[in-house]
Amino acid sequence: MKILLIGAHGTIGRAVHALLAPRHEILTVGRNSGELRADLTQPQTLAAMFKAAGPVDAIVSTAGNLHFGPLSEMTAEQFNRGLQDKLLGQVQLALLGQQWLRDGGSITLTSGIVATEPIRHGSNASTVNAAIDAFVAAAAVELQRGQRINAVSPTLLTESAQAYGAVFPGFETVPAQRVALAYQRSIEGVQTGRVYRVHG
Amino acid sequence: MKILLIGAHGTIGRAVHALLAPRHEILTVGRNSGELRADLTQPQTLAAMFKAAGPVDAIVSTAGNLHFGPLSEMTAEQFNRGLQDKLLGQVQLALLGQQWLRDGGSITLTSGIVATEPIRHGSNASTVNAAIDAFVAAAAVELQRGQRINAVSPTLLTESAQAYGAVFPGFETVPAQRVALAYQRSIEGVQTGRVYRVHG
Ligand SMILES: NC(=O)c1ccc[n+]([C@@H]2O[C@H](COP(=O)([O-])OP(=O)(O)OC[C@H]3O[C@@H](n4cnc5c(N)ncnc54)[C@H](OP(=O)(O)O)[C@@H]3O)[C@@H](O)[C@H]2O)c1
Ligand SMILES: NC(=O)c1ccc[n+]([C@@H]2O[C@H](COP(=O)([O-])OP(=O)(O)OC[C@H]3O[C@@H](n4cnc5c(N)ncnc54)[C@H](OP(=O)(O)O)[C@@H]3O)[C@@H](O)[C@H]2O)c1
Repeated sequence: MKILLIGAHGTIGRAVHALLAPRHEILTVGRNSGELRADLTQPQTLAAMFKAAGPVDAIVSTAGNLHFGPLSEMTAEQFNRGLQDKLLGQVQLALLGQQWLRDGGSITLTSGIVATEPIRHGSNASTVNAAIDAFVAAAAVELQRGQRINAVSPTLLTESAQAYGAVFPGFETVPAQRVALAYQRSIEGVQTGRVYRVHG
Repeated sequence: MKILLIGAHGTIGRAVHALLAPRHEILTVGRNSGELRADLTQPQTLAAMFKAAGPVDAIVSTAGNLHFGPLSEMTAEQFNRGLQDKLLGQVQLALLGQQWLRDGGSITLTSGIVATEPIRHGSNASTVNAAIDAFVAAAAVELQRGQRINAVSPTLLTESAQAYGAVFPGFETVPAQRVALAYQRSIEGVQTGRVYRVHG
């Protein structure tokens, strides 16, 4: 398969790449890294990315930024940053991607455990991640030509525990290698509209 | 209680008003209707609304617009309309409302059954409604001074069946009067971070 991997150089993206590269042709994408450059918040860069890549069998996003901060001080502008980046950016990837995805191809987006397990300062993250989970369920019933769409919802990664562990007290972590399997299930499997929860 | 009711003149808003008005002081709000005028998509009108209302015991939204349309033709711009209106508008109401809400006061937002039950042309609606449900769960753990926040998730209203029934095949409808009870539970009850589902 020819796979477009947005966020390929990140913690999750690298693990997905390592798992899939032996059997597939992977095109890596990032804002400042990767064979192709694109930014989820810049629609024209996504359009250019698809044009450069041509038809693909899978579109995978392991990218997207959120706003973290106390609710008592949060502004709508800050909240909107997460909506425009991780949420609308990945939605946009799916909306444009439909046209470039071969029959039976798949789209795999990334959400996260805080969709259903709120954490301190995480109201934007919970909102955005739950929105992504709902989007794939709803988009799946409308996609055509056998195209599929799923999300992977990881808990805190073992590799990220040092950086973010303090706001995930008592959460079990999972190694990126295990999370990568969920992307493989989505890409090489048959299901659609699923959220693959890798929550421990 | 002094209750700010945004969307008071709508199908749901009128039923909420009818149920609560005998026992509470209600300030009605809409873009083109109500004692106070405000638009969820215009932050400065919400700020002016709160200033005009002064401290309140409950903030209730029965308002917010979504984008409906086929996924195959949807643009990110169209998708963003629902994010900016029903989602960010209600989030903004909560973010600003924290400052105007008395100790123990409540915020009640409106989502909808398509959060978990996708319908044709409803990918934006599913996304936005699920996002609202997750937002109240996450915001609840951070609100201070005993403030509470919940959502009401109605199925199709009996009163709206003629207008929207075609896209809700086989869904049971509920009368607005029954949906209004969920708002009463949220406002006069003790729970927080809840989604009151009135799904049939
Ligand atoms: N790490 C965790 O524990 C964890 C747990 C649950 C969920 N998640 C979610 O998984 C996703 C990836 O997490 P991660 O820890 O792997 O992140 P990461 O290590 O920071 O990697 C993110 C990757 O995506 C690219 N990227 C970032 N923003 C982008 C944008 N707007 N447009 C295009 N590319 C962009 C980055 O490359 P450039 O800088 O070159 O753009 C980078 O390669 C995030 O959405 C995160 O919320 C992570
Ligand atoms: N009706 C249903 O079957 C149903 C089922 C599930 C969920 N819902 C949700 O419940 C909410 C209300 O539905 P409804 O059927 O009662 O709607 P409606 O009859 O159209 O009433 C909406 C009310 O909100 C006000 N409004 C609309 N947009 C606004 C904005 N941006 N800022 C401020 N006020 C605004 C309108 O007054 P002005 O025009 O004066 O602004 C009107 O009073 C919607 O979010 C809808 O998605 C409805």
